[in-house]
Amino acid sequence: VLGFRSEPVQHLRRLTTNRRFRWTERRFVIEGPNRLEEALRSGLPVEGVYIETTASADLLALADRAKAGGAAVFELQTGVLARVCEVATPQPVAAVVPMVDVGVGDIDFTSLAVVAVGVQDPGNAGTIVRSAGASGAGAVIFCEGSVDLYNPKTVRSSAGALFHIPAVTGVNAEEVLDELGRKGLRRLATVPRQGDIYSDVDLTGATALVMGAEAAGLPDAALARCDGRITVPMAADSESLNVAMAATVLCYEAARQRGWAFPNSRIRPGST
Amino acid sequence: VLGFRSEPVQHLRRLTTNRRFRWTERRFVIEGPNRLEEALRSGLPVEGVYIETTASADLLALADRAKAGGAAVFELQTGVLARVCEVATPQPVAAVVPMVDVGVGDIDFTSLAVVAVGVQDPGNAGTIVRSAGASGAGAVIFCEGSVDLYNPKTVRSSAGALFHIPAVTGVNAEEVLDELGRKGLRRLATVPRQGDIYSDVDLTGATALVMGAEAAGLPDAALARCDGRITVPMAADSESLNVAMAATVLCYEAARQRGWAFPNSRIRPGST
Repeated sequence: VLGFRSEPVQHLRRLTTNRRFRWTERRFVIEGPNRLEEALRSGLPVEGVYIETTASADLLALADRAKAGGAAVFELQTGVLARVCEVATPQPVAAVVPMVDVGVGDIDFTSLAVVAVGVQDPGNAGTIVRSAGASGAGAVIFCEGSVDLYNPKTVRSSAGALFHIPAVTGVNAEEVLDELGRKGLRRLATVPRQGDIYSDVDLTGATALVMGAEAAGLPDAALARCDGRITVPMAADSESLNVAMAATVLCYEAARQRGWAFPNSRIRPGST
Repeated sequence: VLGFRSEPVQHLRRLTTNRRFRWTERRFVIEGPNRLEEALRSGLPVEGVYIETTASADLLALADRAKAGGAAVFELQTGVLARVCEVATPQPVAAVVPMVDVGVGDIDFTSLAVVAVGVQDPGNAGTIVRSAGASGAGAVIFCEGSVDLYNPKTVRSSAGALFHIPAVTGVNAEEVLDELGRKGLRRLATVPRQGDIYSDVDLTGATALVMGAEAAGLPDAALARCDGRITVPMAADSESLNVAMAATVLCYEAARQRGWAFPNSRIRPGST
Protein backbone atom coordinates (compact mmCIF):
# COMPACT_ATOMS: atom_id res chain seq x y z
CA VAL A 1 0.00 0.00 0.00
CA LEU A 2 1.73 3.14 -1.25
CA GLY A 3 1.78 6.62 0.27
CA PHE A 4 1.98 9.99 -1.44
CA ARG A 5 5.79 10.06 -1.36
CA SER A 6 6.32 6.67 -3.00
CA GLU A 7 8.00 6.61 -6.38
CA PRO A 8 5.03 5.33 -8.46
CA VAL A 9 2.77 7.96 -6.91
CA GLN A 10 5.29 10.71 -7.60
CA HIS A 11 5.43 9.54 -11.21
CA LEU A 12 1.63 9.83 -11.41
CA ARG A 13 1.85 13.24 -9.79
CA ARG A 14 4.39 14.53 -12.32
CA LEU A 15 2.23 13.29 -15.20
CA THR A 16 -0.70 15.13 -13.65
CA THR A 17 0.96 18.45 -12.99
CA ASN A 18 3.78 18.79 -15.50
CA ARG A 19 2.92 19.33 -19.14
CA ARG A 20 6.48 18.94 -20.36
CA PHE A 21 6.92 15.68 -18.45
CA ARG A 22 3.68 14.33 -19.98
CA TRP A 23 5.01 15.04 -23.46
CA THR A 24 8.46 13.64 -22.72
CA GLU A 25 6.81 10.45 -21.50
CA ARG A 26 4.00 10.64 -24.07
CA ARG A 27 1.66 9.37 -21.39
CA PHE A 28 -1.26 10.90 -19.53
CA VAL A 29 -3.55 10.25 -16.60
CA ILE A 30 -7.18 9.22 -16.71
CA GLU A 31 -9.44 9.16 -13.65
CA GLY A 32 -12.35 6.98 -12.68
CA PRO A 33 -13.76 3.55 -13.48
CA ASN A 34 -15.58 4.72 -16.63
CA ARG A 35 -12.43 6.10 -18.21
CA LEU A 36 -10.44 2.99 -17.30
CA GLU A 37 -13.17 0.76 -18.70
CA GLU A 38 -13.21 2.75 -21.96
CA ALA A 39 -9.44 2.70 -22.25
CA LEU A 40 -9.44 -1.09 -21.88
CA ARG A 41 -12.34 -1.49 -24.28
CA SER A 42 -10.63 0.67 -26.90
CA GLY A 43 -7.60 -1.60 -26.73
CA LEU A 44 -5.30 1.06 -25.34
CA PRO A 45 -2.34 -0.46 -23.45
CA VAL A 46 -2.98 0.68 -19.87
CA GLU A 47 0.38 0.88 -18.12
CA GLY A 48 -0.39 1.69 -14.53
CA VAL A 49 -3.51 1.46 -12.40
CA TYR A 50 -3.64 3.32 -9.08
CA ILE A 51 -6.41 2.15 -6.84
CA GLU A 52 -7.53 3.06 -3.33
CA THR A 53 -7.43 0.23 -0.77
CA THR A 54 -11.10 0.83 -0.14
CA ALA A 55 -12.08 0.14 -3.77
CA SER A 56 -15.18 -1.91 -4.53
CA ALA A 57 -15.09 -5.49 -5.80
CA ASP A 58 -16.15 -4.28 -9.26
CA LEU A 59 -13.27 -1.88 -9.38
CA LEU A 60 -10.80 -4.53 -8.22
CA ALA A 61 -12.07 -6.76 -11.02
CA LEU A 62 -11.48 -3.93 -13.49
CA ALA A 63 -7.93 -3.50 -12.16
CA ASP A 64 -7.42 -7.24 -12.62
CA ARG A 65 -8.48 -6.93 -16.26
CA ALA A 66 -5.91 -4.15 -16.70
CA LYS A 67 -3.28 -6.31 -14.97
CA ALA A 68 -4.04 -9.22 -17.29
CA GLY A 69 -3.36 -6.79 -20.16
CA GLY A 70 0.03 -5.89 -18.75
CA ALA A 71 -0.68 -3.00 -16.38
CA ALA A 72 1.14 -2.56 -13.09
CA VAL A 73 -1.43 -2.19 -10.32
CA PHE A 74 -0.64 -0.03 -7.28
CA GLU A 75 -2.68 0.03 -4.11
CA LEU A 76 -2.78 3.44 -2.46
CA GLN A 77 -3.44 4.74 1.02
CA THR A 78 -6.75 6.56 1.42
CA GLY A 79 -6.53 10.21 0.40
CA VAL A 80 -3.51 9.83 -1.87
CA LEU A 81 -5.51 10.23 -5.09
CA ALA A 82 -7.18 13.37 -3.76
CA ARG A 83 -3.72 14.89 -3.25
CA VAL A 84 -2.39 13.72 -6.61
CA CYS A 85 -5.39 14.84 -8.64
CA GLU A 86 -6.03 17.97 -6.55
CA VAL A 87 -9.78 17.43 -6.43
CA ALA A 88 -11.98 17.43 -3.37
CA THR A 89 -13.90 14.30 -4.30
CA PRO A 90 -11.48 12.16 -6.30
CA GLN A 91 -12.33 9.10 -8.30
CA PRO A 92 -11.31 5.83 -6.58
CA VAL A 93 -8.96 4.93 -9.43
CA ALA A 94 -6.53 6.59 -11.82
CA ALA A 95 -4.51 5.10 -14.64
CA VAL A 96 -1.58 5.95 -16.86
CA VAL A 97 -2.14 5.42 -20.59
CA PRO A 98 -0.26 6.38 -23.76
CA MET A 99 -1.33 9.53 -25.58
CA VAL A 100 -4.02 8.99 -28.17
CA ASP A 101 -3.68 11.91 -30.60
CA VAL A 102 -3.35 11.21 -34.32
CA GLY A 103 -1.74 13.12 -37.17
CA VAL A 104 -3.69 15.50 -39.40
CA GLY A 105 -3.27 13.02 -42.24
CA ASP A 106 -5.20 10.43 -40.25
CA ILE A 107 -8.51 12.26 -39.95
CA ASP A 108 -11.59 11.84 -42.13
CA PHE A 109 -11.51 14.75 -44.57
CA THR A 110 -15.11 14.20 -45.67
CA SER A 111 -16.67 14.90 -42.29
CA LEU A 112 -16.82 17.68 -39.74
CA ALA A 113 -13.65 18.83 -37.98
CA VAL A 114 -13.61 21.23 -35.06
CA VAL A 115 -10.45 23.35 -35.05
CA ALA A 116 -9.56 25.16 -31.81
CA VAL A 117 -7.14 28.05 -32.16
CA GLY A 118 -5.78 29.39 -28.88
CA VAL A 119 -8.44 27.93 -26.57
CA GLN A 120 -6.92 28.45 -23.11
CA ASP A 121 -9.44 27.17 -20.62
CA PRO A 122 -9.00 23.43 -19.91
CA GLY A 123 -12.70 22.97 -19.11
CA ASN A 124 -13.75 24.59 -22.38
CA ALA A 125 -11.23 22.51 -24.32
CA GLY A 126 -12.55 19.30 -22.78
CA THR A 127 -16.14 20.31 -23.44
CA ILE A 128 -15.29 20.92 -27.10
CA VAL A 129 -13.91 17.37 -27.35
CA ARG A 130 -16.97 16.01 -25.57
CA SER A 131 -19.45 17.84 -27.79
CA ALA A 132 -17.58 16.96 -30.96
CA GLY A 133 -17.52 13.30 -29.89
CA ALA A 134 -21.15 13.17 -28.80
CA SER A 135 -22.40 14.85 -31.97
CA GLY A 136 -20.51 12.49 -34.23
CA ALA A 137 -17.95 14.94 -35.60
CA GLY A 138 -15.01 13.40 -37.43
CA ALA A 139 -12.14 15.05 -35.59
CA VAL A 140 -11.01 17.75 -33.19
CA ILE A 141 -7.84 19.69 -33.85
CA PHE A 142 -6.10 21.72 -31.14
CA CYS A 143 -3.58 24.13 -32.59
CA GLU A 144 -0.40 25.39 -30.93
CA GLY A 145 -1.19 27.98 -28.32
CA SER A 146 -4.19 26.05 -27.03
CA VAL A 147 -4.26 24.38 -23.63
CA ASP A 148 -2.72 20.90 -23.46
CA LEU A 149 -5.21 18.28 -24.64
CA TYR A 150 -3.90 16.04 -21.84
CA ASN A 151 -4.29 18.57 -19.04
CA PRO A 152 -6.16 16.65 -16.30
CA LYS A 153 -9.02 19.16 -16.33
CA THR A 154 -9.34 18.85 -20.09
CA VAL A 155 -9.32 15.06 -19.89
CA ARG A 156 -11.92 15.21 -17.11
CA SER A 157 -14.28 17.53 -19.02
CA SER A 158 -13.90 15.55 -22.22
CA ALA A 159 -15.65 12.70 -20.38
CA GLY A 160 -14.04 9.91 -22.34
CA ALA A 161 -14.57 11.42 -25.78
CA LEU A 162 -10.79 11.41 -26.27
CA PHE A 163 -11.13 7.66 -26.73
CA HIS A 164 -13.87 8.00 -29.34
CA ILE A 165 -12.97 10.88 -31.64
CA PRO A 166 -9.68 11.34 -33.47
CA ALA A 167 -7.86 14.28 -31.87
CA VAL A 168 -4.95 16.18 -33.37
CA THR A 169 -2.85 18.48 -31.21
CA GLY A 170 0.14 20.82 -31.33
CA VAL A 171 -0.21 21.73 -34.99
CA ASN A 172 0.38 25.20 -36.39
CA ALA A 173 -2.99 26.88 -37.04
CA GLU A 174 -2.05 28.42 -40.38
CA GLU A 175 -0.51 25.22 -41.69
CA VAL A 176 -3.42 23.07 -40.64
CA LEU A 177 -5.99 25.46 -42.11
CA ASP A 178 -4.06 25.46 -45.39
CA GLU A 179 -3.98 21.67 -45.32
CA LEU A 180 -7.71 21.38 -44.58
CA GLY A 181 -8.37 23.75 -47.48
CA ARG A 182 -6.29 21.61 -49.84
CA LYS A 183 -8.28 18.57 -48.72
CA GLY A 184 -11.47 20.33 -49.69
CA LEU A 185 -12.95 21.23 -46.32
CA ARG A 186 -14.95 24.44 -46.13
CA ARG A 187 -13.30 26.39 -43.31
CA LEU A 188 -15.84 28.41 -41.34
CA ALA A 189 -14.56 30.93 -38.82
CA THR A 190 -16.79 31.34 -35.80
CA VAL A 191 -17.04 35.05 -35.01
CA PRO A 192 -19.07 36.75 -32.28
CA ARG A 193 -20.94 39.00 -34.70
CA GLN A 194 -21.59 39.80 -38.36
CA GLY A 195 -21.02 36.28 -39.63
CA ASP A 196 -23.78 34.33 -41.38
CA ILE A 197 -26.28 32.86 -38.94
CA TYR A 198 -24.88 29.36 -38.44
CA SER A 199 -28.17 27.59 -39.02
CA ASP A 200 -28.54 29.27 -42.44
CA VAL A 201 -25.25 27.71 -43.55
CA ASP A 202 -25.04 24.26 -45.10
CA LEU A 203 -22.94 22.18 -42.72
CA THR A 204 -23.55 18.83 -44.39
CA GLY A 205 -20.42 18.82 -46.51
CA ALA A 206 -16.79 18.51 -45.48
CA THR A 207 -16.51 21.36 -43.00
CA ALA A 208 -14.02 22.74 -40.51
CA LEU A 209 -15.53 24.77 -37.68
CA VAL A 210 -12.75 27.12 -36.61
CA MET A 211 -13.10 28.33 -33.02
CA GLY A 212 -11.03 31.14 -31.51
CA ALA A 213 -9.77 31.98 -28.05
CA GLU A 214 -12.20 32.94 -25.29
CA ALA A 215 -11.23 36.61 -25.17
CA ALA A 216 -9.23 37.46 -28.27
CA GLY A 217 -11.18 35.49 -30.88
CA LEU A 218 -9.42 34.25 -34.00
CA PRO A 219 -6.12 35.80 -35.07
CA ASP A 220 -6.12 37.56 -38.46
CA ALA A 221 -3.91 34.93 -40.05
CA ALA A 222 -6.47 32.25 -39.22
CA LEU A 223 -9.45 34.38 -40.24
CA ALA A 224 -7.80 35.13 -43.59
CA ARG A 225 -7.56 31.42 -44.35
CA CYS A 226 -11.25 30.73 -43.77
CA ASP A 227 -13.84 30.42 -46.52
CA GLY A 228 -16.69 31.95 -44.56
CA ARG A 229 -17.71 33.37 -41.21
CA ILE A 230 -20.54 32.16 -39.01
CA THR A 231 -22.11 33.58 -35.89
CA VAL A 232 -24.29 32.14 -33.15
CA PRO A 233 -26.93 34.87 -32.64
CA MET A 234 -27.61 36.19 -29.19
CA ALA A 235 -30.21 38.26 -27.41
CA ALA A 236 -29.13 41.90 -27.55
CA ASP A 237 -28.15 42.27 -23.92
CA SER A 238 -26.15 39.04 -23.61
CA GLU A 239 -22.46 38.62 -23.25
CA SER A 240 -20.95 36.24 -25.78
CA LEU A 241 -21.40 32.54 -25.27
CA ASN A 242 -18.19 30.89 -24.25
CA VAL A 243 -16.29 28.94 -26.89
CA ALA A 244 -17.40 25.58 -25.51
CA MET A 245 -21.07 26.50 -25.64
CA ALA A 246 -20.70 27.85 -29.18
CA ALA A 247 -18.93 24.66 -30.27
CA THR A 248 -21.70 22.57 -28.73
CA VAL A 249 -24.40 24.51 -30.57
CA LEU A 250 -22.50 24.31 -33.88
CA CYS A 251 -21.64 20.61 -33.64
CA TYR A 252 -25.25 19.76 -32.88
CA GLU A 253 -26.57 21.92 -35.72
CA ALA A 254 -24.22 20.06 -38.06
CA ALA A 255 -25.46 16.72 -36.69
CA ARG A 256 -29.06 17.83 -37.13
CA GLN A 257 -28.46 18.91 -40.73
CA ARG A 258 -26.74 15.60 -41.38
CA GLY A 259 -29.83 13.76 -40.16
CA TRP A 260 -28.08 12.24 -37.13
CA ALA A 261 -26.02 10.05 -39.39
CA PHE A 262 -23.41 9.23 -36.79
CA PRO A 263 -20.35 7.62 -38.27
CA ASN A 264 -20.24 3.88 -37.65
CA SER A 265 -16.53 3.56 -37.68
CA ARG A 266 -13.90 5.99 -36.57
CA ILE A 267 -10.17 6.03 -36.74
CA ARG A 268 -8.94 4.69 -33.44
CA PRO A 269 -5.70 5.44 -31.68
CA GLY A 270 -3.09 3.07 -33.02
CA SER A 271 -4.99 2.18 -36.17
CA THR A 272 -2.66 4.10 -38.47
CA VAL B 1 -8.16 50.94 2.87
CA LEU B 2 -9.65 47.80 4.38
CA GLY B 3 -8.03 44.47 5.17
CA PHE B 4 -9.51 40.97 5.12
CA ARG B 5 -10.57 41.13 8.77
CA SER B 6 -12.50 44.39 8.52
CA GLU B 7 -16.23 44.28 9.12
CA PRO B 8 -17.40 45.22 5.57
CA VAL B 9 -15.09 42.60 4.09
CA GLN B 10 -16.33 39.94 6.50
CA HIS B 11 -19.88 40.83 5.46
CA LEU B 12 -18.90 40.32 1.81
CA ARG B 13 -17.23 37.06 2.76
CA ARG B 14 -20.33 35.73 4.51
CA LEU B 15 -22.49 36.61 1.52
CA THR B 16 -20.01 34.74 -0.66
CA THR B 17 -19.67 31.58 1.37
CA ASN B 18 -22.89 31.21 3.34
CA ARG B 19 -26.09 30.33 1.47
CA ARG B 20 -28.34 30.81 4.46
CA PHE B 21 -26.84 34.23 5.20
CA ARG B 22 -27.40 35.27 1.57
CA TRP B 23 -31.06 34.36 1.85
CA THR B 24 -31.50 36.01 5.24
CA GLU B 25 -30.05 39.19 3.80
CA ARG B 26 -31.63 38.62 0.35
CA ARG B 27 -28.43 39.97 -1.16
CA PHE B 28 -25.70 38.44 -3.27
CA VAL B 29 -22.26 39.18 -4.64
CA ILE B 30 -21.33 40.00 -8.21
CA GLU B 31 -17.74 40.18 -9.44
CA GLY B 32 -16.06 42.27 -12.09
CA PRO B 33 -16.62 45.55 -13.94
CA ASN B 34 -18.98 44.02 -16.53
CA ARG B 35 -21.37 42.71 -13.90
CA LEU B 36 -21.29 45.97 -11.97
CA GLU B 37 -21.92 47.93 -15.16
CA GLU B 38 -24.89 45.68 -16.02
CA ALA B 39 -26.32 45.93 -12.51
CA LEU B 40 -26.19 49.72 -12.71
CA ARG B 41 -27.62 49.76 -16.22
CA SER B 42 -30.50 47.50 -15.21
CA GLY B 43 -31.38 49.95 -12.44
CA LEU B 44 -30.59 47.54 -9.61
CA PRO B 45 -29.79 49.36 -6.36
CA VAL B 46 -26.12 48.50 -5.82
CA GLU B 47 -25.45 48.62 -2.08
CA GLY B 48 -21.76 48.04 -1.67
CA VAL B 49 -18.81 48.26 -4.03
CA TYR B 50 -15.49 46.67 -3.04
CA ILE B 51 -12.59 47.86 -5.09
CA GLU B 52 -8.85 47.19 -5.05
CA THR B 53 -6.65 50.23 -4.41
CA THR B 54 -4.88 49.46 -7.69
CA ALA B 55 -8.09 49.81 -9.75
CA SER B 56 -8.00 51.61 -13.09
CA ALA B 57 -9.44 55.08 -13.66
CA ASP B 58 -12.34 53.53 -15.61
CA LEU B 59 -13.17 51.30 -12.70
CA LEU B 60 -12.98 54.17 -10.20
CA ALA B 61 -15.40 56.10 -12.42
CA LEU B 62 -17.75 53.11 -12.36
CA ALA B 63 -17.54 52.98 -8.57
CA ASP B 64 -18.35 56.70 -8.50
CA ARG B 65 -21.48 56.02 -10.56
CA ALA B 66 -22.51 53.40 -8.03
CA LYS B 67 -21.77 55.82 -5.19
CA ALA B 68 -23.93 58.49 -6.82
CA GLY B 69 -26.71 55.90 -6.84
CA GLY B 70 -26.34 55.29 -3.12
CA ALA B 71 -23.70 52.55 -2.87
CA ALA B 72 -21.10 52.49 -0.13
CA VAL B 73 -17.67 52.18 -1.73
CA PHE B 74 -14.89 50.32 0.09
CA GLU B 75 -11.25 50.41 -0.92
CA LEU B 76 -9.45 47.15 -0.25
CA GLN B 77 -5.87 46.10 0.25
CA THR B 78 -4.38 44.15 -2.63
CA GLY B 79 -5.19 40.45 -2.43
CA VAL B 80 -8.28 40.80 -0.27
CA LEU B 81 -10.72 40.04 -3.09
CA ALA B 82 -8.73 36.94 -4.03
CA ARG B 83 -9.22 35.67 -0.48
CA VAL B 84 -12.88 36.61 -0.31
CA CYS B 85 -13.84 35.16 -3.67
CA GLU B 86 -11.47 32.19 -3.41
CA VAL B 87 -10.26 32.51 -6.98
CA ALA B 88 -6.68 32.62 -8.17
CA THR B 89 -7.19 35.57 -10.52
CA PRO B 90 -9.96 37.66 -8.98
CA GLN B 91 -11.78 40.52 -10.63
CA PRO B 92 -10.65 43.97 -9.39
CA VAL B 93 -14.12 44.75 -8.07
CA ALA B 94 -17.03 43.05 -6.33
CA ALA B 95 -20.41 44.42 -5.37
CA VAL B 96 -23.36 43.55 -3.18
CA VAL B 97 -26.76 43.75 -4.86
CA PRO B 98 -30.29 42.65 -3.93
CA MET B 99 -31.51 39.32 -5.24
CA VAL B 100 -33.20 39.51 -8.62
CA ASP B 101 -35.44 36.44 -8.78
CA VAL B 102 -39.10 36.83 -9.62
CA GLY B 103 -42.21 34.80 -8.81
CA VAL B 104 -43.60 32.13 -11.13
CA GLY B 105 -46.56 34.40 -11.77
CA ASP B 106 -44.25 37.04 -13.23
CA ILE B 107 -42.86 35.06 -16.14
CA ASP B 108 -44.02 35.13 -19.74
CA PHE B 109 -46.18 32.03 -20.16
CA THR B 110 -46.19 32.28 -23.97
CA SER B 111 -42.47 31.78 -24.39
CA LEU B 112 -39.81 29.19 -23.55
CA ALA B 113 -39.02 28.38 -19.93
CA VAL B 114 -36.10 26.23 -18.82
CA VAL B 115 -36.92 24.31 -15.66
CA ALA B 116 -34.00 22.81 -13.71
CA VAL B 117 -34.91 20.04 -11.27
CA GLY B 118 -32.10 19.06 -8.91
CA VAL B 119 -29.18 20.53 -10.87
CA GLN B 120 -26.33 20.39 -8.36
CA ASP B 121 -23.28 21.71 -10.11
CA PRO B 122 -22.97 25.51 -9.78
CA GLY B 123 -21.12 25.82 -13.09
CA ASN B 124 -23.81 23.88 -14.93
CA ALA B 125 -26.54 25.94 -13.28
CA GLY B 126 -24.88 29.19 -14.34
CA THR B 127 -24.36 27.92 -17.87
CA ILE B 128 -28.06 27.07 -18.09
CA VAL B 129 -28.93 30.66 -17.14
CA ARG B 130 -26.38 32.00 -19.62
CA SER B 131 -27.66 29.85 -22.49
CA ALA B 132 -31.27 30.59 -21.74
CA GLY B 133 -30.50 34.31 -21.66
CA ALA B 134 -28.37 34.31 -24.80
CA SER B 135 -30.91 32.32 -26.78
CA GLY B 136 -33.76 34.61 -25.82
CA ALA B 137 -35.70 32.20 -23.62
CA GLY B 138 -38.41 33.75 -21.48
CA ALA B 139 -37.44 32.42 -18.07
CA VAL B 140 -35.33 30.00 -16.07
CA ILE B 141 -36.79 28.19 -13.10
CA PHE B 142 -34.60 26.48 -10.49
CA CYS B 143 -36.60 24.12 -8.33
CA GLU B 144 -35.93 23.19 -4.71
CA GLY B 145 -33.03 20.77 -4.49
CA SER B 146 -31.02 22.62 -7.11
CA VAL B 147 -27.87 24.53 -6.31
CA ASP B 148 -28.39 28.10 -5.07
CA LEU B 149 -28.90 30.47 -7.99
CA TYR B 150 -26.77 33.00 -6.08
CA ASN B 151 -23.84 30.68 -5.43
CA PRO B 152 -20.79 32.72 -6.53
CA LYS B 153 -19.80 30.06 -9.07
CA THR B 154 -23.30 30.03 -10.52
CA VAL B 155 -23.34 33.83 -10.74
CA ARG B 156 -19.92 33.75 -12.37
CA SER B 157 -20.87 31.15 -15.02
CA SER B 158 -24.15 32.89 -15.75
CA ALA B 159 -22.05 35.78 -17.11
CA GLY B 160 -24.57 38.49 -16.36
CA ALA B 161 -27.58 36.67 -17.77
CA LEU B 162 -29.20 36.86 -14.32
CA PHE B 163 -29.77 40.55 -15.07
CA HIS B 164 -31.40 39.85 -18.43
CA ILE B 165 -33.67 36.85 -18.02
CA PRO B 166 -36.36 36.43 -15.39
CA ALA B 167 -35.23 33.74 -12.95
CA VAL B 168 -37.41 31.88 -10.48
CA THR B 169 -35.86 29.90 -7.67
CA GLY B 170 -36.73 27.74 -4.67
CA VAL B 171 -40.06 26.51 -6.02
CA ASN B 172 -41.37 23.00 -5.60
CA ALA B 173 -40.88 21.06 -8.85
CA GLU B 174 -44.24 19.33 -8.81
CA GLU B 175 -46.15 22.50 -7.99
CA VAL B 176 -44.39 24.55 -10.63
CA LEU B 177 -44.88 21.89 -13.32
CA ASP B 178 -48.58 21.76 -12.45
CA GLU B 179 -48.76 25.54 -12.66
CA LEU B 180 -46.96 25.67 -16.01
CA GLY B 181 -49.36 23.05 -17.30
CA ARG B 182 -52.36 25.10 -16.20
CA LYS B 183 -50.87 28.10 -17.99
CA GLY B 184 -50.74 26.08 -21.19
CA LEU B 185 -47.03 25.37 -21.51
CA ARG B 186 -46.05 22.09 -23.11
CA ARG B 187 -43.75 20.46 -20.56
CA LEU B 188 -41.01 18.45 -22.23
CA ALA B 189 -38.85 16.23 -20.06
CA THR B 190 -35.27 15.92 -21.27
CA VAL B 191 -34.24 12.30 -20.96
CA PRO B 192 -30.91 10.71 -21.95
CA ARG B 193 -32.52 8.17 -24.28
CA GLN B 194 -35.78 7.04 -25.89
CA GLY B 195 -37.36 10.47 -26.03
CA ASP B 196 -38.30 12.10 -29.34
CA ILE B 197 -35.32 13.61 -31.10
CA TYR B 198 -35.48 17.21 -29.88
CA SER B 199 -35.14 18.74 -33.35
CA ASP B 200 -38.18 16.78 -34.58
CA VAL B 201 -40.32 18.42 -31.91
CA ASP B 202 -42.07 21.75 -32.43
CA LEU B 203 -40.55 24.12 -29.90
CA THR B 204 -42.15 27.29 -31.24
CA GLY B 205 -45.12 27.32 -28.87
CA ALA B 206 -45.23 27.93 -25.15
CA THR B 207 -42.78 25.31 -23.93
CA ALA B 208 -41.09 24.26 -20.70
CA LEU B 209 -37.82 22.38 -21.14
CA VAL B 210 -37.50 20.29 -18.01
CA MET B 211 -33.91 19.35 -17.18
CA GLY B 212 -32.93 16.79 -14.55
CA ALA B 213 -29.97 16.33 -12.25
CA GLU B 214 -26.56 15.47 -13.66
CA ALA B 215 -26.51 11.89 -12.41
CA ALA B 216 -30.01 10.90 -11.37
CA GLY B 217 -32.02 12.54 -14.14
CA LEU B 218 -35.60 13.59 -13.48
CA PRO B 219 -37.53 12.16 -10.53
CA ASP B 220 -40.64 10.15 -11.40
CA ALA B 221 -43.00 12.77 -9.98
CA ALA B 222 -41.58 15.37 -12.38
CA LEU B 223 -41.54 12.96 -15.34
CA ALA B 224 -45.16 12.06 -14.69
CA ARG B 225 -46.18 15.71 -15.01
CA CYS B 226 -44.54 16.22 -18.39
CA ASP B 227 -46.42 16.16 -21.69
CA GLY B 228 -43.61 14.63 -23.70
CA ARG B 229 -40.02 13.42 -23.59
CA ILE B 230 -37.16 14.64 -25.72
CA THR B 231 -33.63 13.38 -26.17
CA VAL B 232 -30.46 14.89 -27.55
CA PRO B 233 -29.03 12.07 -29.69
CA MET B 234 -25.46 11.00 -29.20
CA ALA B 235 -22.88 8.94 -31.01
CA ALA B 236 -23.10 5.38 -29.74
CA ASP B 237 -19.92 5.34 -27.70
CA SER B 238 -20.43 8.69 -25.94
CA GLU B 239 -21.22 9.34 -22.35
CA SER B 240 -24.19 11.62 -21.87
CA LEU B 241 -23.80 15.32 -22.44
CA ASN B 242 -23.90 17.22 -19.22
CA VAL B 243 -27.08 19.05 -18.34
CA ALA B 244 -25.63 22.46 -19.25
CA MET B 245 -24.60 21.30 -22.72
CA ALA B 246 -28.00 19.70 -23.31
CA ALA B 247 -29.76 22.89 -22.20
CA THR B 248 -27.58 24.94 -24.55
CA VAL B 249 -28.42 22.69 -27.50
CA LEU B 250 -32.14 22.74 -26.70
CA CYS B 251 -32.39 26.49 -26.10
CA TYR B 252 -30.64 27.17 -29.40
CA GLU B 253 -32.81 24.74 -31.31
CA ALA B 254 -35.85 26.54 -29.91
CA ALA B 255 -34.38 29.91 -30.96
CA ARG B 256 -33.65 28.55 -34.43
CA GLN B 257 -37.19 27.22 -34.83
CA ARG B 258 -38.52 30.58 -33.66
CA GLY B 259 -36.54 32.31 -36.40
CA TRP B 260 -34.27 34.14 -33.94
CA ALA B 261 -37.18 36.27 -32.83
CA PHE B 262 -35.55 37.47 -29.64
CA PRO B 263 -37.99 39.15 -27.30
CA ASN B 264 -37.61 42.93 -27.30
CA SER B 265 -38.77 43.42 -23.80
CA ARG B 266 -38.33 41.23 -20.81
CA ILE B 267 -39.61 41.34 -17.28
CA ARG B 268 -36.91 43.02 -15.22
CA PRO B 269 -36.19 42.62 -11.56
CA GLY B 270 -38.41 44.99 -9.67
CA SER B 271 -40.88 45.50 -12.49
CA THR B 272 -43.66 43.60 -10.77
